[in-house]
Amino acid sequence: MTLPPDLDIARSVTPKPVRDIAAGMGLDADLLRPYGDDVAKIDLAAIDRLADRPKAKYVVVTAITPTPLGEGKTTTAVGLGQAMAHIGKQATLSLRQPSMGPTFGIKGGAAGGGYSQVIPMELLNLHLTGDFHAVTAAHNLLAAMVDNHLHHGNELDLAIDDITWRRVLDVNDRALRNIVVGLGGKIDGVPRQTGFDITAASEVMALLALTTSAADLRERLGRIVVGYTRSGEPVTADQLQAAGSMAVILRDALSPNLLQTLEHTPVIVHTGPFGNIATGNSSVIGDLIGIRTGEYLITEAGFGADMGAERFFNIKCRTSGLVPDAAVVVATIRALKAHSGNYRIVAGKPLPDDLFAERPDDVEAGAANLRKQIENVQAHGITPVVAINAFPTDHPSEHEVVRRIAESMGVRAEVCTNVVDGGAGAKALAGAVVEACDEPSEFRFLYDTADSLKTKIEKVATRIYGAERVEYTGPASRQIASYEANGFGDLPVCIAKTHLSISGDPSLKGAPTGHTLQVREVRASVGAGFVYPICGTMSTMPGLSKQPAATRIGFDDDGRIVGLS
Amino acid sequence: MTLPPDLDIARSVTPKPVRDIAAGMGLDADLLRPYGDDVAKIDLAAIDRLADRPKAKYVVVTAITPTPLGEGKTTTAVGLGQAMAHIGKQATLSLRQPSMGPTFGIKGGAAGGGYSQVIPMELLNLHLTGDFHAVTAAHNLLAAMVDNHLHHGNELDLAIDDITWRRVLDVNDRALRNIVVGLGGKIDGVPRQTGFDITAASEVMALLALTTSAADLRERLGRIVVGYTRSGEPVTADQLQAAGSMAVILRDALSPNLLQTLEHTPVIVHTGPFGNIATGNSSVIGDLIGIRTGEYLITEAGFGADMGAERFFNIKCRTSGLVPDAAVVVATIRALKAHSGNYRIVAGKPLPDDLFAERPDDVEAGAANLRKQIENVQAHGITPVVAINAFPTDHPSEHEVVRRIAESMGVRAEVCTNVVDGGAGAKALAGAVVEACDEPSEFRFLYDTADSLKTKIEKVATRIYGAERVEYTGPASRQIASYEANGFGDLPVCIAKTHLSISGDPSLKGAPTGHTLQVREVRASVGAGFVYPICGTMSTMPGLSKQPAATRIGFDDDGRIVGLS
Repeated sequence: MTLPPDLDIARSVTPKPVRDIAAGMGLDADLLRPYGDDVAKIDLAAIDRLADRPKAKYVVVTAITPTPLGEGKTTTAVGLGQAMAHIGKQATLSLRQPSMGPTFGIKGGAAGGGYSQVIPMELLNLHLTGDFHAVTAAHNLLAAMVDNHLHHGNELDLAIDDITWRRVLDVNDRALRNIVVGLGGKIDGVPRQTGFDITAASEVMALLALTTSAADLRERLGRIVVGYTRSGEPVTADQLQAAGSMAVILRDALSPNLLQTLEHTPVIVHTGPFGNIATGNSSVIGDLIGIRTGEYLITEAGFGADMGAERFFNIKCRTSGLVPDAAVVVATIRALKAHSGNYRIVAGKPLPDDLFAERPDDVEAGAANLRKQIENVQAHGITPVVAINAFPTDHPSEHEVVRRIAESMGVRAEVCTNVVDGGAGAKALAGAVVEACDEPSEFRFLYDTADSLKTKIEKVATRIYGAERVEYTGPASRQIASYEANGFGDLPVCIAKTHLSISGDPSLKGAPTGHTLQVREVRASVGAGFVYPICGTMSTMPGLSKQPAATRIGFDDDGRIVGLS
Repeated sequence: MTLPPDLDIARSVTPKPVRDIAAGMGLDADLLRPYGDDVAKIDLAAIDRLADRPKAKYVVVTAITPTPLGEGKTTTAVGLGQAMAHIGKQATLSLRQPSMGPTFGIKGGAAGGGYSQVIPMELLNLHLTGDFHAVTAAHNLLAAMVDNHLHHGNELDLAIDDITWRRVLDVNDRALRNIVVGLGGKIDGVPRQTGFDITAASEVMALLALTTSAADLRERLGRIVVGYTRSGEPVTADQLQAAGSMAVILRDALSPNLLQTLEHTPVIVHTGPFGNIATGNSSVIGDLIGIRTGEYLITEAGFGADMGAERFFNIKCRTSGLVPDAAVVVATIRALKAHSGNYRIVAGKPLPDDLFAERPDDVEAGAANLRKQIENVQAHGITPVVAINAFPTDHPSEHEVVRRIAESMGVRAEVCTNVVDGGAGAKALAGAVVEACDEPSEFRFLYDTADSLKTKIEKVATRIYGAERVEYTGPASRQIASYEANGFGDLPVCIAKTHLSISGDPSLKGAPTGHTLQVREVRASVGAGFVYPICGTMSTMPGLSKQPAATRIGFDDDGRIVGLS
């Protein structure tokens, strides 16, 4: 069967009034700031107001190492949220806000898919309530203050070639990656090389995702390091007197947004930090509210379990103090086959035909990746459940392989058809998740923050990535030493590496071992609160293709949006 | 007496629920999209829904040529709106949205002042409902599509040194005025020089202010010219297939915002185009709705009557089809004294002490400017009323001079104390405006659009600016010839010149005559729908001072915003 386009499905359902959704979560009406009938911001006072209510079970949806196409983590999370009602349980979802830039690039949108979507998808994929724009504005005000400081005499003695704070825009625009600013005359600033990242890559976004309160937001903003003096001392947003204004600009963005699924499951949508150089997880504040609004709080972590879930456990949960109860590891047959190394999947190109043939052996070969990602969850003391995100081209024998492998590790695996069937298609998964949550959880961090930065990196690299050892370039080692000297040594680490392999090398499929993680350079998001070693090249500003989605998005003759998906 | 800070006054009044404000305007609740309790967007369907209601009298608030401090046009407009209720009349205001960039620069905000303010001022001065951000996003998507076109082979043969479309951000950031993009490797775009303007200077902003419907918006976006081919043919947003997506990004921004004054007068706030290179007037759509919501619709035009009011008459009213009934010319004693040429007022410096001495002769000398600006209103067949925006340092003898001069021209002049007294302080002005509106109006345009571009420029220069003649540089003349060859010759003209003199020379005070207007270059906002000759240097991206407002804005210990004004 062929599904109607996502946008048509999304429009076929009339959202319930958002105040009714909130009421079902136990949120008083005075805690809502409506944006139309279908979206509202939730006041942070909700955290205190709900403090006496019981805590929900806390479930993170993660995945095997994805192909460039993604394996349907969001659709599975949404489907699971919807499915809970089918088995008599009350769930809230807590998700990231999609970035608008890629909506007009390749993707055309990111709100789940088929009958597992967040609505109104047109709002979710565009401005929503303006949080991303607020991050852009706060980030760029600080950048203007940096260049203004140079222009007015540079009292703090910022080294012009050691300014780390760039600018951001929520657009795919490769021409902005590397630029020279301050050209023109003397009144037009000081010339220097810099660039723009996409807003999702802003440290302000990462910071907003990790902050716990308005006061904490203000403090973290003040701690942002924009660059270094000529003698190597960090210069902060507080020294530039910019953090107060940044906090004011972010006042509304600090409040999470409330939307719903096609089946009216409440969805808290808040922040959208990058998944490579940042945590790739939705906000702590969203979860602090969501954890008191039902029986199950389901959130999603970006990319595979080695990436988003590892940060979920070691950075996000460490900050929030919340303890997870279970993790869903999403797998697709196509990705498992790809991990056999016998297929080549390239974004923007059609899938190879033989990927659809019945090949249980290839699934078996690729399942090393699934095994390792299951272990990566278990390494944190959390019970995993495998969700097989089923495609019409899958074969029952292939599903059986996955189920058998999971069972051999004592893990339940369930086939999900929620893209086609909505919540009903994830009932078995929901049952397995409920069961997993009832098992005793022994959540543990992978490392202590008191460990040295190199120890922390090495624990993640060896225990999660399967690396034999870590190698640092000279600059990386010097950077680590300088961060430790500057007092940033007790921050957790967020290792920026490819999401297409558990290792640092995107060509290594399956579950590679014996490899060396190469740390090219190390940066710090001191305000957000983590150090990020960079392994390989990370693009923090996407480009557009020759025929981007922007050329297809528009209005039809009835004034309805077309081209979003 | 000393007034409390604007922010304290603004906070001392609890806004009425915006749905009650709307109900008082005859707007059905289903036409509102609330953003919290105090702000709502008005659906464009209101235009048709209200079509059978009587039209309000239409009043534009303009001014004499201001000093760099501004002469209180917004406070007078707000005070006049509030005053109408004091004399038993029902008024709606229609105003521009302030730009957020300058809020963190010099100004600290722009929402009127004292007891004549728009509330909630914290929302007005920050993101409001995100319209400026939407303009930024739409504008920059088109810029990304331009550079993407170059990157992917430049099929349209865009001349790399003849790309006129820059980027925009709503921030004061001089370092972005002149930049080089596309540095890095081959995958990072094509290197070229360009720059950023502030969002208020975006053609998309001007276009949004002049558009009349969603369909018209889409067409105007498509007509935007981004640059020229190597053979001199214009290249449009439609050719780049970007206009559909831009329209989608602007969907919500097309709807005006509803706020209120301290005395609960309805205020439609929509768009904020620059006053030099664009119209400096609030939106046509805001006025098309507002004109059916009461007995008086009061709007404001930027800078002096030679600038914003001239564009109000010849561009905005031409587009909207609305006919004005009266114009308020705001004057201050300090500005009239400055026009005597005996004082020097510099932005950011304290006013000279002798400006406060009783000097009716200097007021008389400077009143040449008032006379000319009154004539500039009368040249369009509209009845002017003079509003003397009173300061505590004024002397009655000085007010008397203004009143006498106005009366000698058959024009009423009234002293306004609405900053201190609220609407009650502008009752006399309101009475005079009602009287002026009851006089028969013979509104006429200054030029026909069928006139040649040079004829249009010359009509404005000689009749409004008092110029003897217009001189064009070689490039300006060639640009005009090329625009006429490309079919843009029938657009109205928006002459970009200093707002500190009626002439093109900011040092010429009073009402200079015999001067020559120097047209340095000519540009076209084809999508917005006007050609703008540039006389002198126009900054389209402000900078920050050494201690900008951003260093003082923040939260106090009770979590309340401080530093906005």
